[in-house]
Amino acid sequence: MTGAEALVATLVNGGVEVCFANPGTSEMHIVHALDRLAKVRCVLGLFEGVVTGAADGYARMAGKPACTLLHLAPGLSNGLANLHNASRAHVPLLNLVGQHATQHLRFASPLKGDIEAVAGLYSKWLRTSSAPEQIGQDAAAAIVAARTAPEGTATLIVPADVAWSDRGSTVALPPIPQSPLPTAESVEHAARILRSDSPAALLLSGNGLYSEGLIAAGRIAAGTGARLLTPYGFTRIERGAGRAVVDRIPYDPEQAADFLKDLRHLILVGADPPVAHFAHRGKASELAPRTCELFALATPTEDCAGALRALAEALSLHSTKPRCETASRPPLPSGSITLPRLANAIAALLPEGAIVADESMTSGRGIMAAARGAPRHDWLANTGGSIGFALPLAVGAAIACLDRRVLSLTADGSGMYTLQALWTIAREELNVTTVIFANRAYAILYAEFDTINVGQPGEMTRTLFDLIHPELDWVMLSRGLGVPAFRVDSMDEFCRVLRKGFEEPGPKLIEVVL
Amino acid sequence: MTGAEALVATLVNGGVEVCFANPGTSEMHIVHALDRLAKVRCVLGLFEGVVTGAADGYARMAGKPACTLLHLAPGLSNGLANLHNASRAHVPLLNLVGQHATQHLRFASPLKGDIEAVAGLYSKWLRTSSAPEQIGQDAAAAIVAARTAPEGTATLIVPADVAWSDRGSTVALPPIPQSPLPTAESVEHAARILRSDSPAALLLSGNGLYSEGLIAAGRIAAGTGARLLTPYGFTRIERGAGRAVVDRIPYDPEQAADFLKDLRHLILVGADPPVAHFAHRGKASELAPRTCELFALATPTEDCAGALRALAEALSLHSTKPRCETASRPPLPSGSITLPRLANAIAALLPEGAIVADESMTSGRGIMAAARGAPRHDWLANTGGSIGFALPLAVGAAIACLDRRVLSLTADGSGMYTLQALWTIAREELNVTTVIFANRAYAILYAEFDTINVGQPGEMTRTLFDLIHPELDWVMLSRGLGVPAFRVDSMDEFCRVLRKGFEEPGPKLIEVVL
Repeated sequence: MTGAEALVATLVNGGVEVCFANPGTSEMHIVHALDRLAKVRCVLGLFEGVVTGAADGYARMAGKPACTLLHLAPGLSNGLANLHNASRAHVPLLNLVGQHATQHLRFASPLKGDIEAVAGLYSKWLRTSSAPEQIGQDAAAAIVAARTAPEGTATLIVPADVAWSDRGSTVALPPIPQSPLPTAESVEHAARILRSDSPAALLLSGNGLYSEGLIAAGRIAAGTGARLLTPYGFTRIERGAGRAVVDRIPYDPEQAADFLKDLRHLILVGADPPVAHFAHRGKASELAPRTCELFALATPTEDCAGALRALAEALSLHSTKPRCETASRPPLPSGSITLPRLANAIAALLPEGAIVADESMTSGRGIMAAARGAPRHDWLANTGGSIGFALPLAVGAAIACLDRRVLSLTADGSGMYTLQALWTIAREELNVTTVIFANRAYAILYAEFDTINVGQPGEMTRTLFDLIHPELDWVMLSRGLGVPAFRVDSMDEFCRVLRKGFEEPGPKLIEVVL
Repeated sequence: MTGAEALVATLVNGGVEVCFANPGTSEMHIVHALDRLAKVRCVLGLFEGVVTGAADGYARMAGKPACTLLHLAPGLSNGLANLHNASRAHVPLLNLVGQHATQHLRFASPLKGDIEAVAGLYSKWLRTSSAPEQIGQDAAAAIVAARTAPEGTATLIVPADVAWSDRGSTVALPPIPQSPLPTAESVEHAARILRSDSPAALLLSGNGLYSEGLIAAGRIAAGTGARLLTPYGFTRIERGAGRAVVDRIPYDPEQAADFLKDLRHLILVGADPPVAHFAHRGKASELAPRTCELFALATPTEDCAGALRALAEALSLHSTKPRCETASRPPLPSGSITLPRLANAIAALLPEGAIVADESMTSGRGIMAAARGAPRHDWLANTGGSIGFALPLAVGAAIACLDRRVLSLTADGSGMYTLQALWTIAREELNVTTVIFANRAYAILYAEFDTINVGQPGEMTRTLFDLIHPELDWVMLSRGLGVPAFRVDSMDEFCRVLRKGFEEPGPKLIEVVL
């Protein structure tokens, strides 16, 4: 058994079912091992940002890691922006990166680079495999590291000679350590806060936003009147009719401060204290009022769901009916296209079990609110703020949940960073409907420009913020990548195509010109 | 004057004329300063790999740095693969990267990242500006560092508060240190080698491949019979009728070894010893025969052109007529499409002064040889081996040389990494003709698979190497990005459209289905 075969066999034993890949020559023996063992679904991305973003989306929905297969330092580098986002999502992810054969590294060959340094930027665990006899242990250790809280990215660098040499050996996966619960004192402290009359909220993260954790949170909200909040950038939330009422902190720092202004207590459940994405001159970065006390019930290393269950127990709310959204959908809008109507149309048509990858930016700020009473669905947001994640994320989410519908919301600016994902969506015949909000600008930058108080943007600024001369034709781009595409100019058209997207098999793209 | 204004004013004083940009909120004040001073041409790229690749192309042709403007750690990360290539090209390049305002850095905001660590990967000089009073000095130091041999990437990180604060001050650019010449002993040693009867070659790099350096090399070749060689990956070579005869070491390691097998002396002029791109099991990485002695006449830090002039002088060849290519073009081919005919068509039609950005991969191996007798032109190759460079490189080369024609040769696989460059080409109305060799595969990986001797590629391997299901439609992709595009299926059609591309203003794209 070669080192490459031992690697793949260990991954398969460790539960890895999917490999998002963009390999090169140095990964050739790993490709061959994937082929021989034929137990991993290999999904090709035509750019590495697609690969890493897909691995993030897969992990968010599957709750376990896929692996990537990336080509040396530049290949890994191309995937870094979405590894940044994944690192902020605390999802398990396993990078396999090829390295030159050991004896080749002393030469200044063109692709030589410091892979360890590149991988070190966003890896919680990093190792270069030293021998085929070791690679099974290395792979198992990588999986354990990725899955141990706080979950994250493990990167295993595989020199070509380790991959091609015989004497590869596999190992069984050791048990994954359980996330610890917070101390009884912490739980009691949080319970005391919630028993007081002071306005309080829980800021939820991790597995506090779905399944048992979310149900416990809903019980706490019902029993104490505390608000349930999520950061603007969250990994995954289960929501819709019958699920706990959770509000999202707005993106705009002034709106966010206003949204939080009445709070006297904010209990952090795996979340960081809420801060603005960017500093603004003369304004505080912290979003909660000074008079609000922050208390961390659970850190990202601890079990949020367990913490919430323990807190509900401490408050004797473990059988209380959670405060949940009631079923309600807006009527189907018609007429000319407006942002509120688009939000309502999505809310009106979102199918049960849908997964929304949301990078709708300035155009989509009303969609989550509109869809709160829609049938049960999952929402995935941008945790790290680096744009170009929604199309890749949709790839991974769709592959993790083949029987569900994925709605990818992005914009003409953000979509362009990783548009190559559409090809993978087409190739894998994924049930992904992509909506491009084409406002022909980096609109968020115009909004930010306003806040610096230097008057109107001049010609050079407009050159850098406008996406015109020429306008992007997303229908052609999408068709060029194999995804059927439609440009709509009325709400009726939008609704008709969106419904088709949700009902028909395979992908579609809708360009909404704003 | 704000820090941002002092920064931009210093860059302008230092000769920076172009900024390739993809800015975000943290760069807002730099955008405003570029707007107010209005002396830098700002060129928007819709993905950062376009930005850094364009800066490389600009530097190769302008011989001085453009600046980039990139958004925090993820924005810089997206540009790394082409910074890798640029670092191997030894071109001057100046990255400006925004950073959060200093007081914001203590918070775990979504986009927080270790910019210094990301920038450190490929920067020969790196500094975070500490105050508006310092930023002028920082910018001048960055330019000097980028332009001091061996030229390379300087990265200046600009915190938002340094950019927005007053008391910015500019400085004049200090002189750029001249590259040193090799010692007289080195020159004499090289001369002795060339006076002997032993088969010898000069492996040229840097400014040994153009202008006075190339002329001196041509004299040495004429007077001594030494061959002139270039590595497979070179930064820029001036070639064509009337220019020195230089042969390129082939990509394939067996072909390369055969190409070098008769040499007993190889004189390195700014070049590294020739090595294979990748190691292959049981094969040597070094390409020159064991019996060949390598001697470094000039290191990358030294002046290659000066070294060659000194060597010509030492050999009393300073007024010898250089050994040059004679003018000759193949006849225009017709009939069905073949790779040799495509090479001949390009050679037959390449206009005087053309600049070729060559990422034609397996499809284009015959083009350089075919075009050696074409009118004078420049050729740019992939120095770092990371694919996705030819389209961005064409952007920068065209902006550096607005009166010349650029031919960008790429393939369906390599072109996909940075196809966003086509939008910038369209927007800037650049005279760039792009040829896509659409062989529907990562053909180079099939060739490499053959070398590992494991039989035929299986289904999973074909999944990862084939670019089918669906096929990319480059005509639609190009039109979607604003570049007029044509698919050709005969040599007559190819020749007709290529000629139009060279004669008409603005860009065109030709998809050649192989």
